[in-house]
Amino acid sequence: MARTAGSHSDVTGPRVRAAALRLFAKSGYAAVSMRSIAAEVGVQVGALYNYTPDKQSLLFDLMRSHLEDLLERAGPGEGEAAERLAGFVSFHIRYHHDRQDAVFIAYMELRNLSEENFQVIEGLRRRYEDLLEEILAAGVAEGRFDIADTRIATRAVIAMLTGVSTWFRESGRLTLEDVETQYRKMVLNAVRV
Amino acid sequence: MARTAGSHSDVTGPRVRAAALRLFAKSGYAAVSMRSIAAEVGVQVGALYNYTPDKQSLLFDLMRSHLEDLLERAGPGEGEAAERLAGFVSFHIRYHHDRQDAVFIAYMELRNLSEENFQVIEGLRRRYEDLLEEILAAGVAEGRFDIADTRIATRAVIAMLTGVSTWFRESGRLTLEDVETQYRKMVLNAVRV
Repeated sequence: MARTAGSHSDVTGPRVRAAALRLFAKSGYAAVSMRSIAAEVGVQVGALYNYTPDKQSLLFDLMRSHLEDLLERAGPGEGEAAERLAGFVSFHIRYHHDRQDAVFIAYMELRNLSEENFQVIEGLRRRYEDLLEEILAAGVAEGRFDIADTRIATRAVIAMLTGVSTWFRESGRLTLEDVETQYRKMVLNAVRV
Repeated sequence: MARTAGSHSDVTGPRVRAAALRLFAKSGYAAVSMRSIAAEVGVQVGALYNYTPDKQSLLFDLMRSHLEDLLERAGPGEGEAAERLAGFVSFHIRYHHDRQDAVFIAYMELRNLSEENFQVIEGLRRRYEDLLEEILAAGVAEGRFDIADTRIATRAVIAMLTGVSTWFRESGRLTLEDVETQYRKMVLNAVRV
């Protein structure tokens, strides 16, 4: 039954992507072969090529779908900038905390994208940064935030928030809510008048 | 002359380390062979083994020397906590901004350390975090900082600062001083009463 199901690309696709994500995160893109991905999925390597033309496309798909999903879920928020910023902080921490492999790859494997693919990924990343920068600019316009350069502040906030996914563990002494609360406070204090 | 010089490990050592750092950062530890490191240095692979027993030792050496050098240069600072914190921000940004490969490897290749080596590296990293946490705790004791959990704040600040090395370029529209000034302000605001 597994073999029959595996022959349909709508079933194989998610399994291929999950296997590739796992292997890229574990060993790095350059050290992973199409053959090892096929073995991880439990199909012949030929079956893999029904789903994806090559390893580069697989990496690009993983990064693109990660960012597109992120953009789809991230809203501009409503209300005053301070409230929207707090919402952004919570969203970012919650979205990334159980996607460590995707976060790791998004940062680590940029160097392995073709130039054309890199430009697409950078464009998506920039759109996500723009969401936050717009909130920061709105806060400045309201006279509530004091920020010399909103692009720098955007990068600082995103780096700070993404860092959570590298150390937060459910089994640790703090809940995700504790972490979220403290980050909301730090971020708001960092930018407000 | 190059070949004669290369036969002395005190000359080859730094070249081997520089080559390994470059290649690990470019392709990832798993994809780099001792043979390719030797080729990058311009020596036979046998000569490499005069300097290092294996690739794992080379990775460990790179990470350990990066962190030991960092710890040697980072001082506790003097004066009030706010002043010490500002000093830490500037130090961290300046130290890391021209060491992108080392920063990248320190984060990316943790997974490839043996368990024993990982514990050593984690210990050094923790000592560096402790330097910052002690400053934050001093600020709380002075009644000048308001921080719910100094360990979380430490990680947040370090992630934020290290992020600079991933995007700052000398050729960009901002000088390192501009960046430093804005980060000092954001970090101080993030934690102060």
